[in-house]
Amino acid sequence: MIKASVIGASGYTGGELYRLLLMHPQVQVQEITSERFAGEFATKIHPNLRSFSQQKFSSVKDMKRDSDVVFLCTPHEKAMDYVAEFMNSGMKIIDLSADFRLRNAQTYERYYTKHRHPELLSQAVLGIPELHHEEIRNAKLVGAAGCLSTSVILALAPLVKNGLIDTERIIADAKIGSAAAGASFDISTHHPERQGVVRSYKPTGHRHTAEIEQEMSLLAGRQVRVGLTPHAVEMVRGIMSTVHCWLPKQLADIDMWKAYRGFYRDSPFVRLVKEKGTLYRYPEPKMVVGTNFCDIGFELDPTMPRVVVMSAIDNLVKGSGGQAIQCMNLMFGLDEKEGLWRPGMHPI
Amino acid sequence: MIKASVIGASGYTGGELYRLLLMHPQVQVQEITSERFAGEFATKIHPNLRSFSQQKFSSVKDMKRDSDVVFLCTPHEKAMDYVAEFMNSGMKIIDLSADFRLRNAQTYERYYTKHRHPELLSQAVLGIPELHHEEIRNAKLVGAAGCLSTSVILALAPLVKNGLIDTERIIADAKIGSAAAGASFDISTHHPERQGVVRSYKPTGHRHTAEIEQEMSLLAGRQVRVGLTPHAVEMVRGIMSTVHCWLPKQLADIDMWKAYRGFYRDSPFVRLVKEKGTLYRYPEPKMVVGTNFCDIGFELDPTMPRVVVMSAIDNLVKGSGGQAIQCMNLMFGLDEKEGLWRPGMHPI
Amino acid sequence: MIKASVIGASGYTGGELYRLLLMHPQVQVQEITSERFAGEFATKIHPNLRSFSQQKFSSVKDMKRDSDVVFLCTPHEKAMDYVAEFMNSGMKIIDLSADFRLRNAQTYERYYTKHRHPELLSQAVLGIPELHHEEIRNAKLVGAAGCLSTSVILALAPLVKNGLIDTERIIADAKIGSAAAGASFDISTHHPERQGVVRSYKPTGHRHTAEIEQEMSLLAGRQVRVGLTPHAVEMVRGIMSTVHCWLPKQLADIDMWKAYRGFYRDSPFVRLVKEKGTLYRYPEPKMVVGTNFCDIGFELDPTMPRVVVMSAIDNLVKGSGGQAIQCMNLMFGLDEKEGLWRPGMHPI
Amino acid sequence: MIKASVIGASGYTGGELYRLLLMHPQVQVQEITSERFAGEFATKIHPNLRSFSQQKFSSVKDMKRDSDVVFLCTPHEKAMDYVAEFMNSGMKIIDLSADFRLRNAQTYERYYTKHRHPELLSQAVLGIPELHHEEIRNAKLVGAAGCLSTSVILALAPLVKNGLIDTERIIADAKIGSAAAGASFDISTHHPERQGVVRSYKPTGHRHTAEIEQEMSLLAGRQVRVGLTPHAVEMVRGIMSTVHCWLPKQLADIDMWKAYRGFYRDSPFVRLVKEKGTLYRYPEPKMVVGTNFCDIGFELDPTMPRVVVMSAIDNLVKGSGGQAIQCMNLMFGLDEKEGLWRPGMHPI
Repeated sequence: MIKASVIGASGYTGGELYRLLLMHPQVQVQEITSERFAGEFATKIHPNLRSFSQQKFSSVKDMKRDSDVVFLCTPHEKAMDYVAEFMNSGMKIIDLSADFRLRNAQTYERYYTKHRHPELLSQAVLGIPELHHEEIRNAKLVGAAGCLSTSVILALAPLVKNGLIDTERIIADAKIGSAAAGASFDISTHHPERQGVVRSYKPTGHRHTAEIEQEMSLLAGRQVRVGLTPHAVEMVRGIMSTVHCWLPKQLADIDMWKAYRGFYRDSPFVRLVKEKGTLYRYPEPKMVVGTNFCDIGFELDPTMPRVVVMSAIDNLVKGSGGQAIQCMNLMFGLDEKEGLWRPGMHPI
Repeated sequence: MIKASVIGASGYTGGELYRLLLMHPQVQVQEITSERFAGEFATKIHPNLRSFSQQKFSSVKDMKRDSDVVFLCTPHEKAMDYVAEFMNSGMKIIDLSADFRLRNAQTYERYYTKHRHPELLSQAVLGIPELHHEEIRNAKLVGAAGCLSTSVILALAPLVKNGLIDTERIIADAKIGSAAAGASFDISTHHPERQGVVRSYKPTGHRHTAEIEQEMSLLAGRQVRVGLTPHAVEMVRGIMSTVHCWLPKQLADIDMWKAYRGFYRDSPFVRLVKEKGTLYRYPEPKMVVGTNFCDIGFELDPTMPRVVVMSAIDNLVKGSGGQAIQCMNLMFGLDEKEGLWRPGMHPI
Repeated sequence: MIKASVIGASGYTGGELYRLLLMHPQVQVQEITSERFAGEFATKIHPNLRSFSQQKFSSVKDMKRDSDVVFLCTPHEKAMDYVAEFMNSGMKIIDLSADFRLRNAQTYERYYTKHRHPELLSQAVLGIPELHHEEIRNAKLVGAAGCLSTSVILALAPLVKNGLIDTERIIADAKIGSAAAGASFDISTHHPERQGVVRSYKPTGHRHTAEIEQEMSLLAGRQVRVGLTPHAVEMVRGIMSTVHCWLPKQLADIDMWKAYRGFYRDSPFVRLVKEKGTLYRYPEPKMVVGTNFCDIGFELDPTMPRVVVMSAIDNLVKGSGGQAIQCMNLMFGLDEKEGLWRPGMHPI
Repeated sequence: MIKASVIGASGYTGGELYRLLLMHPQVQVQEITSERFAGEFATKIHPNLRSFSQQKFSSVKDMKRDSDVVFLCTPHEKAMDYVAEFMNSGMKIIDLSADFRLRNAQTYERYYTKHRHPELLSQAVLGIPELHHEEIRNAKLVGAAGCLSTSVILALAPLVKNGLIDTERIIADAKIGSAAAGASFDISTHHPERQGVVRSYKPTGHRHTAEIEQEMSLLAGRQVRVGLTPHAVEMVRGIMSTVHCWLPKQLADIDMWKAYRGFYRDSPFVRLVKEKGTLYRYPEPKMVVGTNFCDIGFELDPTMPRVVVMSAIDNLVKGSGGQAIQCMNLMFGLDEKEGLWRPGMHPI
């Protein structure tokens, strides 16, 4: 059994990770921490876990350092200090904050703040198994990818890898549920204000742009630019990324299929969805709620050199907690699917 | 392995049951039928099952009769003929329609239609394990309870059993999600009309009243009357039943706790929810989405002899497919929880 | 033109009232205040008013006292001091807080806090024109009724007035939208937590019980008890009150019609809704969004001596700002409907 | 008073138009028709109009031809025959279907069907007053623009007119509410399937592309291409179009402001929304529900030559019924705003 601890388990990311760890047949959850709720039962904050958890939150300072793996679900800027502290503890580290996603300290600083442990950046692996399978298997420190980033990266990777699109003019128009805000609230998530919106809260310059451009540039072998525009829409869980790409030369469906099938041949959590004769012919976030799947589909525009790629994930699973466990599975030599192989619900 | 077949697997009830059976470690799904979609892959109708099902729907007429158990998810009035046909096939039968829930053919006729096989009614057991545990273990034919009925019956049973309430003046004010309508649509479920409603579509005389009154009368040893008033509200899955009861003599919390704890001592899927100092102090349908739990809580009114009992279920799980599997587990000597022991999600 | 000012215009109640006053052909809005947003344009907080308002919020302390009418949209406990201060200013006062709804200072204290100006209670009239038409016409101080209270009072009044129901055993099971929380937020209105709930946040002892019981007792000529149980449901605007009453003697539809038609003969904003052959056969909050209507319908239970009365309002209009203007119209000798006679939208 | 009739008044477009006409101070509604509901009261289908309409639907064949203006709210392909029939009746015609939006019969045929009255196309004016103000004033036949088209056209027009963007690579990623489906239903609008979706039902080749390209090409003086990708999202009313444009040369905010302010100087229903220090800094559909406004905002991308233009409308008002009345106002020499000058609601 893998002994796992979760730092910052009272938020949505930490809570969902905790739930998935509790269900994982090879994991025993050692400790869960929350500075704010230390001493309280986890079920007080995550009532869904009634009958499944009798644990209380503890404080990090009281935490034993004897887990096999520690998950960090703290806000970015805080996580980096914990990572530095735990780096030589023998525990593997999976950081779900933004602190170890970017390879370049300058880029990190531009989007976040000055990095206090830039020397550790080179030891971190970005936690997207579909792109960094082998590195994750051998990693001591994984920086789990962001939710928007994961959905856009998985949509784009096969196209960029195969040089099929204009890498100067990529538009990623994303639609995201309110769980992305985390458990802390303000007027923007107040129900009367948030219900039913389509709100482009950050039409340019969103932080996740950095991760997407980093990964795409790595695949392309040159600088790639992505215009990311997320919209808050009416759902709790879920991201739909609609990625519009311009094609230097016209493609046929078969070219697209080849690129995607080839790239994701060994990726059980990517499902290609492009079906005829049904309402569900493209990916939709509803279909993946509660699951670790990233559904990807596409449509070539017959009237212009454009392809529309659609990608759907549950931001709390494939976009954070589930993907972190997928990484853990690899780091401990387990089947990638262990503890995560569940279908979604219909309807939901 | 239990060999199971599902008749009418293209609807919401059948689809959810099929999903749960696919995840059940002791079950092998033999056949799934749909007259309308015979020959089509199940994933065309239930796209959530992509990567989990490669089966096609067949027609009942082509179905082999060699399963250990057959689930009927057809509309009521149709199910009774299948039951009659299968009764001597050696297969155990779990009917999710209304056809074998009522003991009395006259009552059935009043709420539905003339029963064509009244002789079988006495062989059927109502599929609520919390009330009929032993009978279900020995049953050949189970009539799985309705969704509204399940939530109201479980809310009321301990009070009626212990003679704590006025059984002439029970009000069950229920709130129900749109999945209850099933997969067939009309103007009432057209999204612009259904979104955001609070609609009391059947304020008196709802069919599920019959089941509730039957079960409560059995427990009370005399005729009990229940005024059931369901409301369509904005959710897909879920029922919240708020049951208002008048008390012949004032009670204290401890009396209530005793009644509920005693009655549900051996019922893993009933959780008593009444907590202080948290937002989640009473049952809520959101907490049980995708699970087989029935969460029950209550509040005594300090200013009048009234108790408010709240009960929350997922109508597609505890209200149909999940409860049917819970019955199946008992009928085959398995642990009641097998294949169903999963927590809900937070947030969702 | 009536010169009107709104104290506390940055909240939802104040904002909606302000919107309606801006559209009122006989009103000129003099001043709008907000301590928190003094100096800011109203449109910064109420962006719906872009192109309609160029006013800024001021602070109460800078407010001139020369309006014809002042509306108080401050929290209760604060309002009473303003009322005391303005009582001899010559301005008519319409208080939308709870401070002048109850006739009895002890009752107020039980549900809220100690009243600092009990001597003014007898001068106040409860602002429900359907019940206090003439008193409002002559009032200097109106305490506009609460939103839940308004919907339940209007549902019950004709039955209580005509002695048709058991006044010891009334159940008002209400469903309410999130706008009722006002513009201030906490975890309970955080979108991921609030979206899709059916949450009985206060199953017994809700404050609005006091207003309902006061008004019903007045009509009955003896103490009436009402068990009010509100539920937060998924909508922004709207209240649906389902009132379950027991009948001392069985009634026919015609008796009900007579009671309601008689009572509301001169009440343009009460619509009786009980129609056959349509989806919309009973009241629904969706139909009254943005309007000052209270739609009321009923169904007699053929199997027990029960009547279910349904009543739907928009809590921000008939439940607060609109009803306040309806009162103002009466106080200034205008047609009750002035500035308020608009239909709802379909669909919405 | 203008005498107006509505053909096809039982659908959502016709119903909303009818509601707005009933509220219009200069209009008297003569007749409303519905083949399916002829003989029924309008309020049976549009219950929001209780107390406002006592009219019944009639059949077109029984309609008198003595209105001043007739609105066609029938499906496309049907409308063209009515137009041909009414063209010489002396009544002005506003067709809300797609039949008279396109100037080119071939284009119409490509997206719809063979046009049976191509000779009338040159007499029709596209009903977007912000672009065709003078032509509409003199028009006998107006083809009111589509809802998606209106929102995208208004977002793009100033940029195309001023030659600020690359007209070969325009992406319009739209999000649309369920009312767009109209009153007829199928599985795609069944609530359990439609609730909470983000569904790209037509990622390429949507019919409204034709109108947008026609109008933009007119403004540009050369062929413009637009990649329109609409998504069904969770709302009833509303469209948010996020238009991503590439810039041949970098622009500053001031250039954008000049283009938009100049173009919409005399357009009261276009509001430019780009505000700092508030949650509502860009357009949002919620803010315009029930109104005839088109709110437009933009953001220049500092890291690439891209501008994101956001445009929000209510598809049933500015996207159909309201805009039709705006056209009628011009055709009859009234102020454009007559009967339409209402703010939205906050919150809603």
